Amino acid sequence: MNQLEQVRKGIATAAIKEVASSEGVEPQCIVEEMAAGHIIIPQNKTHTTISPIGIGKGLRTKVNANIGTSKDHQDIEEELKKLRVAVESGADTVMDLSTGGSLDEIRKAVIKESPVPIGTVPIYQAVIETVKNKQAMVHMSVDTLFKVIEKQTEDGVDFITVHCGLTRESAGRLKREGRLMDVVSRGGAFTIEWMAYNKKENPLYEHYDRLLEISHEYDITLSLGDGLRPGCLADATDRGQVQELIILGELAERAWAQDVQVMIEGPGHVPIHQIATNVQLQKQLCHGAPFYVLGPLVTDIAPGYDHITSAIGGSIAASAGADFLCYVTPSEHLRLPSVEDVKVGVIASKIAAHAADITKGVKGAMERDIKMAKCRKTMDWEQQIKLSLDPTLADKLRSSSQPADKDVCTMCGEFCAIKLLNKEERWKFFD
Amino acid sequence: MNQLEQVRKGIATAAIKEVASSEGVEPQCIVEEMAAGHIIIPQNKTHTTISPIGIGKGLRTKVNANIGTSKDHQDIEEELKKLRVAVESGADTVMDLSTGGSLDEIRKAVIKESPVPIGTVPIYQAVIETVKNKQAMVHMSVDTLFKVIEKQTEDGVDFITVHCGLTRESAGRLKREGRLMDVVSRGGAFTIEWMAYNKKENPLYEHYDRLLEISHEYDITLSLGDGLRPGCLADATDRGQVQELIILGELAERAWAQDVQVMIEGPGHVPIHQIATNVQLQKQLCHGAPFYVLGPLVTDIAPGYDHITSAIGGSIAASAGADFLCYVTPSEHLRLPSVEDVKVGVIASKIAAHAADITKGVKGAMERDIKMAKCRKTMDWEQQIKLSLDPTLADKLRSSSQPADKDVCTMCGEFCAIKLLNKEERWKFFD
Repeated sequence: MNQLEQVRKGIATAAIKEVASSEGVEPQCIVEEMAAGHIIIPQNKTHTTISPIGIGKGLRTKVNANIGTSKDHQDIEEELKKLRVAVESGADTVMDLSTGGSLDEIRKAVIKESPVPIGTVPIYQAVIETVKNKQAMVHMSVDTLFKVIEKQTEDGVDFITVHCGLTRESAGRLKREGRLMDVVSRGGAFTIEWMAYNKKENPLYEHYDRLLEISHEYDITLSLGDGLRPGCLADATDRGQVQELIILGELAERAWAQDVQVMIEGPGHVPIHQIATNVQLQKQLCHGAPFYVLGPLVTDIAPGYDHITSAIGGSIAASAGADFLCYVTPSEHLRLPSVEDVKVGVIASKIAAHAADITKGVKGAMERDIKMAKCRKTMDWEQQIKLSLDPTLADKLRSSSQPADKDVCTMCGEFCAIKLLNKEERWKFFD
Repeated sequence: MNQLEQVRKGIATAAIKEVASSEGVEPQCIVEEMAAGHIIIPQNKTHTTISPIGIGKGLRTKVNANIGTSKDHQDIEEELKKLRVAVESGADTVMDLSTGGSLDEIRKAVIKESPVPIGTVPIYQAVIETVKNKQAMVHMSVDTLFKVIEKQTEDGVDFITVHCGLTRESAGRLKREGRLMDVVSRGGAFTIEWMAYNKKENPLYEHYDRLLEISHEYDITLSLGDGLRPGCLADATDRGQVQELIILGELAERAWAQDVQVMIEGPGHVPIHQIATNVQLQKQLCHGAPFYVLGPLVTDIAPGYDHITSAIGGSIAASAGADFLCYVTPSEHLRLPSVEDVKVGVIASKIAAHAADITKGVKGAMERDIKMAKCRKTMDWEQQIKLSLDPTLADKLRSSSQPADKDVCTMCGEFCAIKLLNKEERWKFFD
């Protein structure tokens, strides 16, 4: 029995118990929400070396970090370094999006070394293998695509992004309405190319049952991708995007019917006032399936700072109910991220997730802030550093500028408001 | 006649025309909203070397950068460098919060060199001058405080923060309810100390009319400070904070009655779900006076990244109607900010302000994003860099990682979705 079959029989699996313990909730709650499709635990049945994590209703908002080579930049050691840095910085999952070098080798190394669930986008490898065989990418056969999915699944991948909702119908709506930037998803662009050249429906939609069979066999989670996600604010929440989301909702139901776990991917680039609408729409159209958002970026004009534009969007999305944030690094729109970018990207997303968890009332979230506030009040710097999301940086900044009085910092020095008022008798006047 | 007297006679001053032109709105709109107290143009009548800026209803959200020495770190050249960097990065105003070195000299140099309005917090200097005269700060005389205010005003300061609403009543409410971190505002802490020791009401409340006279004479804007602003999420929106805000609303009306321009300062540290509430409360209690918020920071646990925690809070606050964002730098809670911190802090706040302006429907805001999207679609990298909030950084990141194909970047390389689909014929299938 896979995980969904077990929870539907009311069984609290070992993974559920582990998740429940780390989240501080009752295993029975997770059993019920998993059975309804509102919580997932992405873990391939062969991938027993990871700590299971839960994503969805009532749980801590999770953060994913994308790593991976491109044709222009490929270094397996650097990718493994990114994996380590991402996990150290607090990433809950990692996706290997490599498109350069030996994809099998990189993926196997990442899966072997990772303590967290690993995701991939199999169509990348299917396209690359087609091109390596001296064929145009549009000649990718359906069998090549499914063989790659099987290979990656056998390797132990825990979740895969599949753009099954990018059908002739949804792309047609996008085309007829018109868009500033058309399609910015790589998997989405491949799929459009393939459909247009072969004059056929999206193979991942057409052969969705075959995908469900593989997923069921290895107990992997489908991350239903949004190939038509907006690539700029002006394209947000348009007909193509919403049409695809409707279809993803239908596909989520078909997955649940086959006991396959599923989450839904979301935009992208979205103006602040449309973010809550997007989350509500997803929750309704997809019957409460976990929502995995990329950003969203709240402006297009800040390349070099897209970890910030997406931390803003991510915090608002998660506050409105999104469950899982895909990080964006400072290098987005400019280059493949560096190891340092990975760290900064993860921390920015962790900030967004944590701030939203306070708003969501997630168990234990506010307690961390209360602890920090108490240490600020008592001027306990050692604990302040320890409680920081990034203790190394906090320590470095403080150490770089030494105050004469060790109780305070060089911002206010002797005029530190906290130190001034840490005298009980000052307050008697205000009784 | 000062500015408020003129607009109340329906006069569109030269400053109003300049603001109207830079904002792309009708001068008459600004005249009406200024007369109602909903827009301010902070400019000392003697400070004619700056470009006037408008803050408030219907206008672009503005950003302030704090600079200034502390006793632990004082270097006038460094502060002037911070001023330049802040303005280059897009700060609309700068506050000189110096508390170390020759305060008069620093302030005069900053006012002389600045092309943007300058703000100060006079009580800092009043306390420091008291201490320099070998007296405890609580021995500051009311005359010393007002002499400093007069001196700074004569020097050409455009707006001053005055914590007039921190009365015995508001501090009493705070004390009786209890708080985790008490008072974290420096001006607030001085005021509490002074009141407690001298067993007297806050002199800036008691002698508010004297403050209004000086303000009227030099046509400066009062920034009514929130001395009781929460210093941690747990203290947000408590009785002390809201009591002070009620009093600030009353004081705003008294300022308007004397033709003095006024804005209201706001928190601080606020959980996401309380931010819109805080903005609405301010707008109601203070009858639409411009709202100037510090952050707000949406979590306490990210020292080293408080430019991000405050960009999240600032974007949500401004989307809900806040008019003016005070930046927070990565060094907040750790040390006096460096020149680099000033730059990063301003850019993070500009992102928050701009993303909110799109949501507010501010004229011209969305156009910048549309231009960027078009340049991304046509792969015009030169223009993409130019349109960036920080062109230098965007250029540096892109140049550091060269793609084989100059149309794309090293993130996706040959698999760039945009490049793949920039072929008209691909879309025919979807007609």
